[in-house]
Amino acid sequence: MSVITQQFSLDMQGASQIENVTAKIQDYVKESELTAGIVTLFIKHTTASIMIFEDEPGLRADTKDIWDTLIPAKPEWQHNTRNPGETNGHSHLRGQIQGQSLTIPFTEQTLMLGTWQQIVVIDFDSCARTREIVVQIIGE
Amino acid sequence: MSVITQQFSLDMQGASQIENVTAKIQDYVKESELTAGIVTLFIKHTTASIMIFEDEPGLRADTKDIWDTLIPAKPEWQHNTRNPGETNGHSHLRGQIQGQSLTIPFTEQTLMLGTWQQIVVIDFDSCARTREIVVQIIGE
Amino acid sequence: MSVITQQFSLDMQGASQIENVTAKIQDYVKESELTAGIVTLFIKHTTASIMIFEDEPGLRADTKDIWDTLIPAKPEWQHNTRNPGETNGHSHLRGQIQGQSLTIPFTEQTLMLGTWQQIVVIDFDSCARTREIVVQIIGE
Repeated sequence: MSVITQQFSLDMQGASQIENVTAKIQDYVKESELTAGIVTLFIKHTTASIMIFEDEPGLRADTKDIWDTLIPAKPEWQHNTRNPGETNGHSHLRGQIQGQSLTIPFTEQTLMLGTWQQIVVIDFDSCARTREIVVQIIGE
Repeated sequence: MSVITQQFSLDMQGASQIENVTAKIQDYVKESELTAGIVTLFIKHTTASIMIFEDEPGLRADTKDIWDTLIPAKPEWQHNTRNPGETNGHSHLRGQIQGQSLTIPFTEQTLMLGTWQQIVVIDFDSCARTREIVVQIIGE
Repeated sequence: MSVITQQFSLDMQGASQIENVTAKIQDYVKESELTAGIVTLFIKHTTASIMIFEDEPGLRADTKDIWDTLIPAKPEWQHNTRNPGETNGHSHLRGQIQGQSLTIPFTEQTLMLGTWQQIVVIDFDSCARTREIVVQIIGE
């Protein structure tokens, strides 16, 4: 059993932008030379998340739409009103519900994803930011 | 330390149907003969989730109700309008928020669940489907 | 590779009360004397969650606000109407969506948290309760 810890960064634009990182994560698993175990994906931010979904243009649009509906961007969030200059109260609330950590099992050096499952970073912030993502592999 | 990877399938009906898999997961832990570690549960689909809740008829009904309220089934989701024949835009959105991966620690060959915690699969799709669930155990 | 399993309890007041446990979790990692691996945090309850957010008073207020909006406390939840004496149907629904399990990687005996990330317990129940939290560390 070994632990291998990697990290990469992504330039994101906010506003529910989605970036597909499936191939990149699969490459880290291959390079680890481990056969079976788990990959822990962890994004080191509070206004962006890592998730699994079927990555097609309709669902990209629907995902933006549902978050705009459930947790609208509005100046009245207390994160904005109590902290001068802040405009991303909604981004925090979306990020904490969608989550920052994702664990995926692998065997035979291959992520055990279903046919339609893609791994993506979604950025809820109100401006462009560079995001750091940890890829930690534990296995044998 | 060892990694043991198992998989099972479930025939589900969609429409927020819930199936309790707690005893089955506990059996996999016992059969692994490992004493302590983590179980990673991973459902290989985008329109169904694995979660923990108190499994009683009232909450089964409330769970269906809250998802129908927060993310209604409607033809207007772009997943439906852009992809002829698709009717499950809402199922995808629910599945990606509820999540596909769940990590539970165990000791003494027993899942460390609280008194009221049950592990369930919830299927958000608009038709019946067979679901594949990975049970990967890492421990000593 | 080793597995170290710890547990601690917290007295919580419900009503979306938030308690910051970041320093405590970091202490467990240090005491483990493991260099790199994952910490699995698991709260053994159905009406409370563990999550990451930026812990500042504005967002504490916004978090309470968004849950009161998305999943209101109301007597009509079937968990309440079918189970005499129960008043926390909304607490269950919030808890199961926010989640009970959180996995965080560490290296150099330090949690790989971003600058603004804090680990907190949030209690959605309608009365005060003592909560048990598992801290399981797997690493080398």
